[in-house]
Amino acid sequence: MVIVYGYIGNILRVNLTGEKIRIEHPEDLFYRRYIGGEGFVAYYLLKELKKGIDPLSDKNELIFATGALTGYAIPGTGRNSVGAKSPLTGGFGEAEVGGHWGAELKHAGFDAIIIEGKAKTPVYLWIQDGEVQIKDARHLWGKVTGEVEAIIKEELGDPLIRVAQIGPGGEHLVRYACIINDLRNAAGRSGMGAVMGSKNLKAIAVRGRKRLKVSDKEKLRAKIREFNEVGYKPYRANFEYGTGYGVMEQFAASGNLPTRNFRDGDFKGAKVLDPGVMKDEIGLTMESCYACPIRCKKVVEIGEPWNVDPLYGGPEYESIGAFGSNCGIDDMKAVCKANELCNKYSIDAISAGVSIGFAMECYENGILTDNDTNGMKLNFGNAEAIIQLVEMIAKREGLGDILAEGVKRAAEKLKNGAEKFAMHVKGQEIPMHEPRFKQGLGVGYAISPTGAEHMANMHDTSIANERSIATHSAIGILEPLEVSDLGIKKIRALVYYTNWRNMLNALLVCYFTPWDYIDVPEIVRAVTGWYTSSWELMKVGERVTTMARVFNLREGLTKKDDWLPDRFFKPQTSGALAKTAINPDEFKNAIMNYYKLMGWSEDGIPTQSKLEELEIDWVSQYL
Amino acid sequence: MVIVYGYIGNILRVNLTGEKIRIEHPEDLFYRRYIGGEGFVAYYLLKELKKGIDPLSDKNELIFATGALTGYAIPGTGRNSVGAKSPLTGGFGEAEVGGHWGAELKHAGFDAIIIEGKAKTPVYLWIQDGEVQIKDARHLWGKVTGEVEAIIKEELGDPLIRVAQIGPGGEHLVRYACIINDLRNAAGRSGMGAVMGSKNLKAIAVRGRKRLKVSDKEKLRAKIREFNEVGYKPYRANFEYGTGYGVMEQFAASGNLPTRNFRDGDFKGAKVLDPGVMKDEIGLTMESCYACPIRCKKVVEIGEPWNVDPLYGGPEYESIGAFGSNCGIDDMKAVCKANELCNKYSIDAISAGVSIGFAMECYENGILTDNDTNGMKLNFGNAEAIIQLVEMIAKREGLGDILAEGVKRAAEKLKNGAEKFAMHVKGQEIPMHEPRFKQGLGVGYAISPTGAEHMANMHDTSIANERSIATHSAIGILEPLEVSDLGIKKIRALVYYTNWRNMLNALLVCYFTPWDYIDVPEIVRAVTGWYTSSWELMKVGERVTTMARVFNLREGLTKKDDWLPDRFFKPQTSGALAKTAINPDEFKNAIMNYYKLMGWSEDGIPTQSKLEELEIDWVSQYL
Repeated sequence: MVIVYGYIGNILRVNLTGEKIRIEHPEDLFYRRYIGGEGFVAYYLLKELKKGIDPLSDKNELIFATGALTGYAIPGTGRNSVGAKSPLTGGFGEAEVGGHWGAELKHAGFDAIIIEGKAKTPVYLWIQDGEVQIKDARHLWGKVTGEVEAIIKEELGDPLIRVAQIGPGGEHLVRYACIINDLRNAAGRSGMGAVMGSKNLKAIAVRGRKRLKVSDKEKLRAKIREFNEVGYKPYRANFEYGTGYGVMEQFAASGNLPTRNFRDGDFKGAKVLDPGVMKDEIGLTMESCYACPIRCKKVVEIGEPWNVDPLYGGPEYESIGAFGSNCGIDDMKAVCKANELCNKYSIDAISAGVSIGFAMECYENGILTDNDTNGMKLNFGNAEAIIQLVEMIAKREGLGDILAEGVKRAAEKLKNGAEKFAMHVKGQEIPMHEPRFKQGLGVGYAISPTGAEHMANMHDTSIANERSIATHSAIGILEPLEVSDLGIKKIRALVYYTNWRNMLNALLVCYFTPWDYIDVPEIVRAVTGWYTSSWELMKVGERVTTMARVFNLREGLTKKDDWLPDRFFKPQTSGALAKTAINPDEFKNAIMNYYKLMGWSEDGIPTQSKLEELEIDWVSQYL
Repeated sequence: MVIVYGYIGNILRVNLTGEKIRIEHPEDLFYRRYIGGEGFVAYYLLKELKKGIDPLSDKNELIFATGALTGYAIPGTGRNSVGAKSPLTGGFGEAEVGGHWGAELKHAGFDAIIIEGKAKTPVYLWIQDGEVQIKDARHLWGKVTGEVEAIIKEELGDPLIRVAQIGPGGEHLVRYACIINDLRNAAGRSGMGAVMGSKNLKAIAVRGRKRLKVSDKEKLRAKIREFNEVGYKPYRANFEYGTGYGVMEQFAASGNLPTRNFRDGDFKGAKVLDPGVMKDEIGLTMESCYACPIRCKKVVEIGEPWNVDPLYGGPEYESIGAFGSNCGIDDMKAVCKANELCNKYSIDAISAGVSIGFAMECYENGILTDNDTNGMKLNFGNAEAIIQLVEMIAKREGLGDILAEGVKRAAEKLKNGAEKFAMHVKGQEIPMHEPRFKQGLGVGYAISPTGAEHMANMHDTSIANERSIATHSAIGILEPLEVSDLGIKKIRALVYYTNWRNMLNALLVCYFTPWDYIDVPEIVRAVTGWYTSSWELMKVGERVTTMARVFNLREGLTKKDDWLPDRFFKPQTSGALAKTAINPDEFKNAIMNYYKLMGWSEDGIPTQSKLEELEIDWVSQYL
């Protein structure tokens, strides 16, 4: 095998049904074309899954993938991706996650793991320096993540082991169950934890001591040094108390803070939900992912009666929004508790919070009654209720069993107009950014292959303001764009930016580091020796986006699924956006322009020439 | 005015009809979007010319433009562009030229000159450090370029003046008259010299002492130093005796050397046409353009009876091919003489040579007779004839008057089947690379906005071979491609590569320097301070290519004009390609794929969304 710098050269394939373990060695061009992470996921899901399989059957595959930079001491690259057909959307499922697990996997000798089939009884994988074992996990089944990690480290006798795993949420096939790395980091969206649960795979424990080869050590070192000495400072300052710090009131004032299931604008409690509150009133420390000086990750500790265990980190902005304003709650400790439970049970905080907000609105509108809630007063603002419901969802108890299906299926079950309170796209719950405010991001929600998604998306406020133009001018975004704009210039920025972010999700570079259109190609050149440019990398992103689209088309998701809930075409009930909403004609036009700029037909189907340009004409068989 | 590093900030507009001189200061974004050179030309021709004007009327504009790097001591940037509606094609006319004139123009205080109208009597422009004068040139009219330059330097009293000018070829409106800089460098194609002649503008003399501002001196110096100390060496070696050196026999052997008006393959005299012959048998020295250590430019001196004056440089590969093998001539001294006359009279050597080759084939087929030639035996191989005909063309004497119209119009005039010997696309004569051999370049000939063109084109042999993949992988060309391949992967390479080259023609970077997809953005960043990338620059190229297309569509050139002469769909009469030709169906398909990959309709018309992506929706009014 040719050495490809940046990679180990090994893809691990584990068939749990037959307990077969195989190591594959793809050719150099595979690595360069698909890069890693979301790129590998898109490749294998298209190549290897049969059309129409049940995501929770043994026919699904679960892919853990690193990228070209994973495992090097480059700030912002301590990430990995997890992918499968999503049990939430029935389409392309993929999520990225920080921490240390991805780097450890690389050091343990693998670029990616493909999990096939289903174990007869619970198992976990133990990967150490190229050696792979399938181990009994019956004693771990039913246990929360913290317990599992402790037991695994204990029984394998190495405290430095890194564990990616599911808790009871994954075991109970909560459709938005996530996978938890290092107890604090979630591959949150798309229900990857449910797929892991359906395979009876409790955890993947890894430990590695391999050194990674670098093509140009000196250049890489210089690049990292430059960042670690000076470059990180503004970013560190920006994330001094993590995501959400200093912006909650501002978001509420502009209508950007999802409030009471995206119904309202005003939220008086926004100030209380600022991470500054944790800093002042809650035990808050900050920690980092692998090799990153930014330390954006919160760790909170709260005593009686909340008992929030610092083992499980602390809430990101998304969790604060989902359990806070979105449920009408202005109690930061309750939010921290709900977040802790999500990590303990491995369920996605966004989907959980939005499912609970949905239930609250159904309750306030008489669609859910005290009978359904077993007497629980499910009004917006009931902090105890959210904590109780997170538990019930994870364990699929009572109303929790319905909400564990996600809002789309729950609304179908509840009927009586519940559908209009189901805030999702393609079945995935909407993240904590208001599409009536950031309208470009709203289009991103509608077209994202994983359903409503805030990661590989454009945040209108940060792309196109005067200050950020300096950076984004590198891809030709030369003029400021209004947040409410849906014109083609805005959609062009969306297309370029989402393609770039999908590339970063293949390469697995964090968005909170300053590595941009110029830095990333430089770093990839230094690590891999590939003579790459922003052009090639942008095309990798376009390739990945397009492959994910083709996967969805194969599974029956079409143009009609590229749309937002009705609510967003009407104003919020109060606040800054009490008179503004998305114009449906402009929105439709924006979607069409997205298709056109991507080289897709008016039905949102990639054209043959676009597939050929991207060198993925092999996927045309699926159209 | 905001200072835009890389530019002076002044565009000079001279109306010769009213003798009005104006200086304009475009905004920063104009500079960044259109960069310079071909970009400026495309912009002004679209904005300011009325549809359907006669290219040789006072309604045409003649634009001289530099780019962001012109005038800095960066190897390979001593170039400028000249553009106008072409009298040869009736479409987009543009040519680039090396030397020192462009740098001098920048130093004299201008980024570009727009010439409007027509002087009543011959004039020349005198530009010195921001001062502009329109001066009488009646005493210069009729004189050859060498005389004119000497007189101007003498009368203005400065031997360091740089002159761009026309000789009698331009005065006589030879449709492929060129503009000559520094006597040795030709803005050769598209008939720009005829436009200059039609305006009664004999010359533009410039002298400048302005220092140009640099955004990041240190980085720029480092980049140049790196090149001047080491990087240039392989390029210098490659061009030790200029273009054509060491390749003539190899070209003949592969069928790539146009022979007897593209009729034959074998050419026994190829060896004699190698610049190595000049080195051994003719006085040959090498010189350079502004600030370039590569020194690829030949200067030849030949005594009696040829009397080739070294003042006029020496022949490039194109001239050697056009007057040599293409006319069946294996006499290097005759070729040097023909080339000298082209520079003296300011006519394009490619079009002149191909026009003479056409006449020879007409003569051998009885379409031209001794009556037409005034007794001259116009057989292939008659060296004296070519020299005589160059003179006759430049002065429009006898048969020369017909050939001065270019082969397309000449064939229309001669009739009797002459058309099948007229080797042109859109009226412009085909350069010295065989499209039956380099088939990707053949598609490039067909679609080039200026008609058959070898500059902003792909040379199949150098893009897609194993060795060059290393460089071109930067834009995602990862696998070797066959010269005879016309599949979509090849066309993708053509699209990317022609767009990049059109960007280089806006920036005005020579193709013979090693500045590539990584270097160019670095250099542009250092000079201008723009935070640009290969992505943005590639899109500039796509923008320029598209604007040129729109210009042609406005002027009535359509899909049907994107085609090659019939000859290329049949084999050569002898040699390596005696059994191979271009397959017309594959070729048609290749053209369609080019359209698709460019985001154009099946009729070759840029789509509205493509125009909007490129931020040139203002041109849609011309479609």
